[in-house]
Amino acid sequence: MEGRLMDIESIQARFRAFAREREWEPFHSPKNIAMALTVEAGELLEHFQWMTEEASFDLDSEKKEQVAQEIADVQLYLCRIADLLKIDMAEAVDRKMVINEEKYPADLVRGSAKKYTEY
Amino acid sequence: MEGRLMDIESIQARFRAFAREREWEPFHSPKNIAMALTVEAGELLEHFQWMTEEASFDLDSEKKEQVAQEIADVQLYLCRIADLLKIDMAEAVDRKMVINEEKYPADLVRGSAKKYTEY
Amino acid sequence: MEGRLMDIESIQARFRAFAREREWEPFHSPKNIAMALTVEAGELLEHFQWMTEEASFDLDSEKKEQVAQEIADVQLYLCRIADLLKIDMAEAVDRKMVINEEKYPADLVRGSAKKYTEY
Amino acid sequence: MEGRLMDIESIQARFRAFAREREWEPFHSPKNIAMALTVEAGELLEHFQWMTEEASFDLDSEKKEQVAQEIADVQLYLCRIADLLKIDMAEAVDRKMVINEEKYPADLVRGSAKKYTEY
Repeated sequence: MEGRLMDIESIQARFRAFAREREWEPFHSPKNIAMALTVEAGELLEHFQWMTEEASFDLDSEKKEQVAQEIADVQLYLCRIADLLKIDMAEAVDRKMVINEEKYPADLVRGSAKKYTEY
Repeated sequence: MEGRLMDIESIQARFRAFAREREWEPFHSPKNIAMALTVEAGELLEHFQWMTEEASFDLDSEKKEQVAQEIADVQLYLCRIADLLKIDMAEAVDRKMVINEEKYPADLVRGSAKKYTEY
Repeated sequence: MEGRLMDIESIQARFRAFAREREWEPFHSPKNIAMALTVEAGELLEHFQWMTEEASFDLDSEKKEQVAQEIADVQLYLCRIADLLKIDMAEAVDRKMVINEEKYPADLVRGSAKKYTEY
Repeated sequence: MEGRLMDIESIQARFRAFAREREWEPFHSPKNIAMALTVEAGELLEHFQWMTEEASFDLDSEKKEQVAQEIADVQLYLCRIADLLKIDMAEAVDRKMVINEEKYPADLVRGSAKKYTEY
């Protein structure tokens, strides 16, 4: 169970120390971190670009490890930018789920690719 | 303190139900979720594209709320793809931090933009 | 035939005037244009995120027009960044094709998804 | 002058042959090419992520060559997706410039970062 709880605060503290010890803080503006996060998202995407959707469910262990590392990179920059901007991620995620649930009422959008695309 | 712990498992369970109720599961291949995640990263990036680095530290409350929502969107798709691929995010993040700490020894890279860029 | 020749120089001159007349030149650093270009690539990607590969070949006319506009946006920022950095795009493309042809010899990589992915 | 005209049609014909000879056509759905294009945009972005805006104007020759190659990669996939979808790029760019000129009237948006951001 433990493993499924992510301690955002301690990740942020550790990343803060990591940047400070390397004197990399001057590079860590929110603007630059948003760029780095997008670069990492692109690296995650790269693993899937020539794969079929079907194959993307069933990665071999080497590919799965590479994908896990890209996911971690995105997660790290996500924690970093939230830290710099003092945004409470857990709370933002909760609010966004409520917004999405209201924006796409199940009865209205169910069972239609077209509708999904439109929304 | 609570707010800084993110309950990945419960976010994933809720997102799973969200997709199931809307019959959107057929669209949620890891390949497609990687695309959606990158699209959301692009939307996060958009908020910063014409801003100076300095200004990016100091968002007004409206902009900060918009940025928080984009961060939440990236976080949601990150949880979703990890769920689909059965990747333990908290564990992957821990391992990646160790990798980074070893890859960029503080003594070697400290205080140099050039070195930072090269690494 | 005419329509298939792209007059990069005149697009760049027009974009330069467009930025100057709006006094937007201060925002147009290569760094910022690279961000804007990536944002537009994300908007192009968005059109395809929930589509099957098969469906992506066969867009209806409304979707095709939206995609054409996103392609144009990426093209415009590509011309803009090349202009700012004094990079000859036509020449860079020629060189890159030669590099790719040599990097992926047809005899070696033919007929294999795996090989394609690896390269 | 010649170098500033880009022969889209011949780039597309060459890329078509390149894909055919390697039997990579099955991977080249518009969906997948949009992904590959975004990945390349991310690689272009990566060069600028820790740079100041000022420094981004003044690349050394090695960095400039790397950036030129990324620009070429984006251009190649842009030509490829337009070819697959039968979109006339030169014409789409012309139309988009007209749309932009009308959408952002110089008199209205001039000299204001805020206005730029809003539009």
